[in-house]
Amino acid sequence: MPKISHKGSQMPESPIRKLVPFSEMAKKKGNHVYHLNIGQPDIKTPEVALVAIKNNHIKILEYSHSAGFESYRNKLADFYTKQQVPVNASDIIITTGGSEALLFALGSTMDVGDEIIIPEPFYANYNGFSVASGVKVVPVISTLEEGFALPPIADFEQLITSKTKAILICNPGNPTGYLYTQEEINQLAELVKKHDLFLIADEVYREFTYDGDEHFSVMNVPGLEEYAIMIDSVSKRYSMCGARIGCIVSKNKSVIATAMKFAQARLSPPTFAQIASEAALDTPQSYFDDVIVEYKGRRDTLIAELNKIEGVKVAVPKGAFYCIAKLPIDNADAFAQWMLEHFSIDGETVMVAPAAGFYSSPNVGLDEIRIAYVLKKEDLIRSVQILKEALTQYNNR
Amino acid sequence: MPKISHKGSQMPESPIRKLVPFSEMAKKKGNHVYHLNIGQPDIKTPEVALVAIKNNHIKILEYSHSAGFESYRNKLADFYTKQQVPVNASDIIITTGGSEALLFALGSTMDVGDEIIIPEPFYANYNGFSVASGVKVVPVISTLEEGFALPPIADFEQLITSKTKAILICNPGNPTGYLYTQEEINQLAELVKKHDLFLIADEVYREFTYDGDEHFSVMNVPGLEEYAIMIDSVSKRYSMCGARIGCIVSKNKSVIATAMKFAQARLSPPTFAQIASEAALDTPQSYFDDVIVEYKGRRDTLIAELNKIEGVKVAVPKGAFYCIAKLPIDNADAFAQWMLEHFSIDGETVMVAPAAGFYSSPNVGLDEIRIAYVLKKEDLIRSVQILKEALTQYNNR
Ligand SMILES: Cc1ncc(COP(=O)(O)O)c(C=O)c1O
Ligand SMILES: Cc1ncc(COP(=O)(O)O)c(C=O)c1O
Repeated sequence: MPKISHKGSQMPESPIRKLVPFSEMAKKKGNHVYHLNIGQPDIKTPEVALVAIKNNHIKILEYSHSAGFESYRNKLADFYTKQQVPVNASDIIITTGGSEALLFALGSTMDVGDEIIIPEPFYANYNGFSVASGVKVVPVISTLEEGFALPPIADFEQLITSKTKAILICNPGNPTGYLYTQEEINQLAELVKKHDLFLIADEVYREFTYDGDEHFSVMNVPGLEEYAIMIDSVSKRYSMCGARIGCIVSKNKSVIATAMKFAQARLSPPTFAQIASEAALDTPQSYFDDVIVEYKGRRDTLIAELNKIEGVKVAVPKGAFYCIAKLPIDNADAFAQWMLEHFSIDGETVMVAPAAGFYSSPNVGLDEIRIAYVLKKEDLIRSVQILKEALTQYNNR
Repeated sequence: MPKISHKGSQMPESPIRKLVPFSEMAKKKGNHVYHLNIGQPDIKTPEVALVAIKNNHIKILEYSHSAGFESYRNKLADFYTKQQVPVNASDIIITTGGSEALLFALGSTMDVGDEIIIPEPFYANYNGFSVASGVKVVPVISTLEEGFALPPIADFEQLITSKTKAILICNPGNPTGYLYTQEEINQLAELVKKHDLFLIADEVYREFTYDGDEHFSVMNVPGLEEYAIMIDSVSKRYSMCGARIGCIVSKNKSVIATAMKFAQARLSPPTFAQIASEAALDTPQSYFDDVIVEYKGRRDTLIAELNKIEGVKVAVPKGAFYCIAKLPIDNADAFAQWMLEHFSIDGETVMVAPAAGFYSSPNVGLDEIRIAYVLKKEDLIRSVQILKEALTQYNNR
């Protein structure tokens, strides 16, 4: 019998999926499960995007251009330019989600055995994309104590070898919620220029910043044009995760020309979703203002509630809609499973993502969880109450 | 300045795209270009699929399950079962086009440096997917003289090494139009069982067969369950290329579990397109009957017209909607470019795909072109007239 590939056996399981059978069991027992584990927002998709789909006049659903609709790329370039990311349509390739943009970025810049340095904890699927691309992830630890700020540049330099080809950051961060300062981005810019590396920035949460802090893009650093690659997506911006539209953006012509060859091989990004994404660019500012108010409220609520639990430590997220919380337990994996299997209050329990899956170093973050604040405030309050009671019972069991 | 990857530089340009600048020039000069070069059908998408999109009630466009809608997979399993492909929903992962299914199949079964044997000429993007996956394509030549029938099994056996992990066939074939017989599929089945290889069958044209010949799937060979992987797509079946929905199908549980990890990393296939694809399963049989009548008419017209040109040889396609034609010239690449750059009759010219791009062996098929018969009969007749005149002028220039 033929065997699956070594690569396939190395592909990580999603750290979120592992607990799914236990949440299914909890639901079968009749328990309600609050999902703090997934980054699927409950925010409505902008009307203008949904209406565009309903009003489409397609008779033959054809392949689009491999780089995406010309009209969409032009409008998107305008959108970015207004956001201090001065790019043209020719610097953009529309992809099937930010996910595909990440794959194209790795494929275009890295060979099998090459190394990519990523501050951890990081978005777990970076592991999967790296395994799929034959690339080795070299983590550099950022800590809850430092609020997940950029690790010292010296820590990066220690890890750079002749195989290092790129540094990948997520800004604002999933799972940390950390927003890099302009100063930090500039430090990274100097570093990649010094060592001739690409700086790939996953900016899919770029609009989600709070407290008046502004997102600073790698595309906005003068002199970094040949080094910077931006990954973006409509998934979170417009609560359009199911569209599967993202993009890879770079001023480096070779990078875009190379990514274009990957794009041509898979023919085109989805047409309906491009129609919705292009229309979504007309979403009124009030939509975003409301969303930010809502998320800021959720964040403040979540953090205030978490801080009421003795022994819980949390870094206040400045962006995105996640935070990492350190719990007064040994093994968050076992705890999360226990909450689903053996715990409930009045028929309710919570599902969290154990944070170890977001670290690539072994045995780090074992007592941490990631919480996505994608629920309404009442539900967040209730979830944290349940979490608090669960911690007490777990530690006394 | 950082450099793109070696992998990226090895990614092939699409053999169809290379001539695009010349067709743009021809159009700028005011010439009409008949596109015989691309596999984008002009057939209408079934109403039932388009209506489902217009009638959607989505308020939040969420990620779907990574394997695709449960409801869609169930209906699709029924559809296949009726077509002598007895599978369950759990044997199917919905992908972003057949393209992604091919990537998942390679990733799940092959490691960097492994070899895949493919009868050539073959769908050019197999090269791109192989480079992206770090896999080496080992071609086995099929010839126009033999009508592109399966090469002798001995030819395959000669190419099998310890690195060979799979054989990939396209059935019916793009670009050959060849439909493998049950006997040929059985021979391949014996071969892969003997050598412990996977048999990956790209069956995205499975409905497109003419003259009463029936498609015989690798999924329909008793005892081949652990070896067979089927690639499918809605692109051609429903003229829904822009949907970007396909699937990978296998009875081999390890293959599906592994492909699932690749699927989870990229989160989900496009939601709108899944709605359309699920609805498309209710397309009435009359739609397909009409399409087959239309394509058969086109094929017969095209072949009859081509046979009128002295020095042109063509293998009558039994399926799909392509054929390979050998022309009385040395270099089809130069000829195709010349037709766009320097030739027209009454303001009209044709664009064809030089066939060399569909071979992986160097210097093979240099005098061949691929013609896609995705145009109306009148246009096909006119196109071949233009081709005929072009050949005369080209050879007398
Ligand atoms: C940090 C980060 N990057 C990329 C993605 C991929 O998103 P998509 O493929 O939906 O654009 C996600 C999704 O959760 C994410 O959190
Ligand atoms: C033989 C073959 N396989 C796969 C594909 C990929 O199609 P899609 O990704 O649109 O399903 C095509 C498209 O032309 C094809 O001709």
